[in-house]
Amino acid sequence: MTQQLKGIGASPGLAIAKAIILKSEAYFPAKSQVEQPELEVQRFRNAVREAREEIGQIRAAAEEKLGAEKAEIFEGHLFILEDPDLIDVIEDKIGSEAVNAEYALHEVSQSFIETLNQMEDELLRERAADVRDVCGRVMNRLRGVENVDLSQLTDECIIIAEDLTPSDTAQLNLDAVRGFVTEIGSRTSHSAIMARSLDIPAIVGVGPDIRSIQAGATIVMDASEGVIFVDPNPEELASFGEKKAKYDQRKAELAQWVNRPTVSSDGHRIELAANIGKLEDVQKALDYGAEGIGLFRTEFLYMGRSELPSEEEQFNSYKYVLEKMAGKPVVIRTLDIGGDKELPYMELPKEINPFLGQRALRLCLERQDVFRAQLRALLRASRYGNLKIMFPMIAVLDELLEAKRILEEEKQKLVASGVEVSSSIEVGMMIEVPSAAISADIFAKEVDFFSIGTNDLIQYTMAADRMNETVSYLYQPCHPSILRLIRNVIDAARQEGKWVGICGEMAGDLTAIPLLLGLGVHELSMSAGSILPARELIGKLSRTEWETLSKQALSMRGQTEVLSFVQEHQ
Amino acid sequence: MTQQLKGIGASPGLAIAKAIILKSEAYFPAKSQVEQPELEVQRFRNAVREAREEIGQIRAAAEEKLGAEKAEIFEGHLFILEDPDLIDVIEDKIGSEAVNAEYALHEVSQSFIETLNQMEDELLRERAADVRDVCGRVMNRLRGVENVDLSQLTDECIIIAEDLTPSDTAQLNLDAVRGFVTEIGSRTSHSAIMARSLDIPAIVGVGPDIRSIQAGATIVMDASEGVIFVDPNPEELASFGEKKAKYDQRKAELAQWVNRPTVSSDGHRIELAANIGKLEDVQKALDYGAEGIGLFRTEFLYMGRSELPSEEEQFNSYKYVLEKMAGKPVVIRTLDIGGDKELPYMELPKEINPFLGQRALRLCLERQDVFRAQLRALLRASRYGNLKIMFPMIAVLDELLEAKRILEEEKQKLVASGVEVSSSIEVGMMIEVPSAAISADIFAKEVDFFSIGTNDLIQYTMAADRMNETVSYLYQPCHPSILRLIRNVIDAARQEGKWVGICGEMAGDLTAIPLLLGLGVHELSMSAGSILPARELIGKLSRTEWETLSKQALSMRGQTEVLSFVQEHQ
Repeated sequence: MTQQLKGIGASPGLAIAKAIILKSEAYFPAKSQVEQPELEVQRFRNAVREAREEIGQIRAAAEEKLGAEKAEIFEGHLFILEDPDLIDVIEDKIGSEAVNAEYALHEVSQSFIETLNQMEDELLRERAADVRDVCGRVMNRLRGVENVDLSQLTDECIIIAEDLTPSDTAQLNLDAVRGFVTEIGSRTSHSAIMARSLDIPAIVGVGPDIRSIQAGATIVMDASEGVIFVDPNPEELASFGEKKAKYDQRKAELAQWVNRPTVSSDGHRIELAANIGKLEDVQKALDYGAEGIGLFRTEFLYMGRSELPSEEEQFNSYKYVLEKMAGKPVVIRTLDIGGDKELPYMELPKEINPFLGQRALRLCLERQDVFRAQLRALLRASRYGNLKIMFPMIAVLDELLEAKRILEEEKQKLVASGVEVSSSIEVGMMIEVPSAAISADIFAKEVDFFSIGTNDLIQYTMAADRMNETVSYLYQPCHPSILRLIRNVIDAARQEGKWVGICGEMAGDLTAIPLLLGLGVHELSMSAGSILPARELIGKLSRTEWETLSKQALSMRGQTEVLSFVQEHQ
Repeated sequence: MTQQLKGIGASPGLAIAKAIILKSEAYFPAKSQVEQPELEVQRFRNAVREAREEIGQIRAAAEEKLGAEKAEIFEGHLFILEDPDLIDVIEDKIGSEAVNAEYALHEVSQSFIETLNQMEDELLRERAADVRDVCGRVMNRLRGVENVDLSQLTDECIIIAEDLTPSDTAQLNLDAVRGFVTEIGSRTSHSAIMARSLDIPAIVGVGPDIRSIQAGATIVMDASEGVIFVDPNPEELASFGEKKAKYDQRKAELAQWVNRPTVSSDGHRIELAANIGKLEDVQKALDYGAEGIGLFRTEFLYMGRSELPSEEEQFNSYKYVLEKMAGKPVVIRTLDIGGDKELPYMELPKEINPFLGQRALRLCLERQDVFRAQLRALLRASRYGNLKIMFPMIAVLDELLEAKRILEEEKQKLVASGVEVSSSIEVGMMIEVPSAAISADIFAKEVDFFSIGTNDLIQYTMAADRMNETVSYLYQPCHPSILRLIRNVIDAARQEGKWVGICGEMAGDLTAIPLLLGLGVHELSMSAGSILPARELIGKLSRTEWETLSKQALSMRGQTEVLSFVQEHQ
């Protein structure tokens, strides 16, 4: 009989193939005392050295197969093997407690991983997966266990595993692997992110039921719905065939929109841009028809490393993105670090409410060395494309004026020293603090544009951390309070002849888009994968009609009412 | 030469007297192994028993001198001596590690105190002082050290100390002690709160310079300014005399306002009410001329204890306040716990951003057992006075409707079982989440009144935790964004014929009051000590004039501009 399992669709698509089971036995080393701790430390160091060589080889292979950017992850792995907070602590434990290396490695790495896992920040949680991966490798070296070689898979298959490590994912032979299904994980876990980036279907978080799947079973997976059929019957196979055909057709339909402008049915242009976080996202943005970059989160340049990036390194990254976008607008947000996003080397103090703490521009105005280096890199890169600089987390006008003053100061210095700086850089700000949305008229006189960061704006307006499950029900993008703030921002900007974008998740939400169009937004910036469906939808919508409908939504009693209203009129 | 020191004025007033130095040597017990841990545990238990007897005696003395309510603090001390998280842990440590009782007590209590000190919540930090006090007492019993008897002080004096413990403060002979000055502490530390409640001048947080003061030195303290003169010269003494005369005169002036109504110069009535947190605050509110209780924080009933208060206990507390206020309005806020305010016995999960977490009504809707018990106690008490029930932390309408539904359900049940419930209870909500302020028109149809909790509203609107020093500059009550929200709430309420109060600190701020008057607020609720100055000020202000001025303030660029504008027109 067919077995049906449910999980979280982490990367969309449909696939059928035989199951390959990746066994990852959890290994809990016993504690034993060693006679000569110094020899045990030596044994540990040898294992680390061997792991390092192994990673070097995988890195080379990955570079060849996936390109230099994807292979960068293994640079990070090498860093981990040099992290004193991990490696020195393990060696100390072996030395001071006279215990076996396996035990010390297990204990220290587990607590390290747990700490990382408790971080709110996605990038740091990804890092936990990296640490687990690397420490597993060292453990295998200690135990003399060989790693499975995923690059040698040749038959079409769907991988079934507890979880995939970053190195597993990087080694996958994409000619053979049709998709993967994991027991643990969420939409933001490392394997999920990698799957989306590799564009292969993935379902994660299936739970322990996954263990009933036998090697060689026929697996049908519909990652768009998060459903897996094990050994489907002929009817199910037929229905899958239909679905797959529809999916492929839909993909082809959407592909037609790649090179078209975004225009509403009554002829209004909207710009659809992409949010990016890493350099490799730029190509994907172009592939999916982005008309610009609406939000470049520069944090990635600062994270997962042991010191601040140099001005030169930043300059090269910004130049790369600007050149690659070839004159299309690129909105680069200055560093949004602090609060939940920690950078160990900056030694930021622990805060009780990090989301209400010294984040982003607040921190940059304090740490001007960091801020000015980034601004210089941006200014120097400006002549390679259409740069727009955006300041995050502004609550009061003084912050904006101070940031602009510092920018101007750095610009004057560069120009005085003969550096060419574009004369047409637009300067804007995020609207994510309620105060900024409420007083948008005051700010509009001082910026070239606003971009509404709905994720944070909603969190603060509702006073609810959306990562906190117990209050995530308050994350209501279409609540009249949020729509009123957005309306207020757009009206204030229009008064001064400035443009307004939206760069939170709401921008790519097909239910919210009609309302945003009606409220008069100029640009929507979203994850690349959402652009084509959004463009198609906007083509069917009349802005004039939605101007009236949005106005009605503003006075409704809550989000539920708004959502059914939108559905009714779509 | 005169020495001048600065500290934080924690309880206003001026005093002159000789210095008495309370030496509290820090005692760091050495660790030693004991042969028979079970005997050591016994020795510890004896010390705990002796400490318990001692506290019982102080309790009796305090009850006689300060009244039953003040003596309650020592009930809390007795609870501490029964807390298994402290006492059992110490006994376990003595037993399992075979260490001396002094060492175990020191180690365990320090870590316990540190944990409490890291809490954001004032009440929990107060509790740290209690634990230090009680553990110091047990330590003295272990060491055979006698406590200083502060009740035996007979000559006029000013006490100089590192800090005053709660039992020190309760034992003070108020006939002799003119004031006190401490090295550590803040406006919210326990000794500061006690000083305000005892109405004696106090300056805290002077820092290590305090140690230079010699016993018997003449101390002049101006707690309103936080200044201390040690051995003042004749000129300084003369200037102090003048100041003291002015201060006394001012006190007498203000006293005239106690029994007058609050009326603006152009004849508009405003209600001035008091915020209270403990039963003993009611008398003080009346003494200072409160026309009602605008905010009764019911948290105190739940904190500093080991289990939920019974419905009966709550009923008695509410009845006490309602009767004592004799028909004057009493706004009782339902439990605002969770987030930063922890109740160990409720086992609330730790949150990464507690201010954006499952606090207050959000928690009550989840823990309906707790919520319904409180509502029943309130309903039963309603017939003893003029009760108004207020729900905190509402962000969306569904929350309010659900809370009202539950209230109605409990009311019907009580009535059905023959309990008398007042038929004129008003039901209102706090406006502290920006969403509620923005959509006040939606809420206004469903409540009898609003009370704006400016402390939280400002924090969320600015996305800045005001307890976090690095961003406390964003706590700007008179920022146009905040004033606009307040205006929006008042306009929405007026449209529906409902009244609006303000119960954050802004309500008692003499700079903000003209603006609030101009925006049309109906009630201001503040700490009792602020009522008379506010009443006097309002008597000089024309509401009509400030209606125009407030409107101008709404379109200013920031708080600085607003503040100088207010100053100019006052």
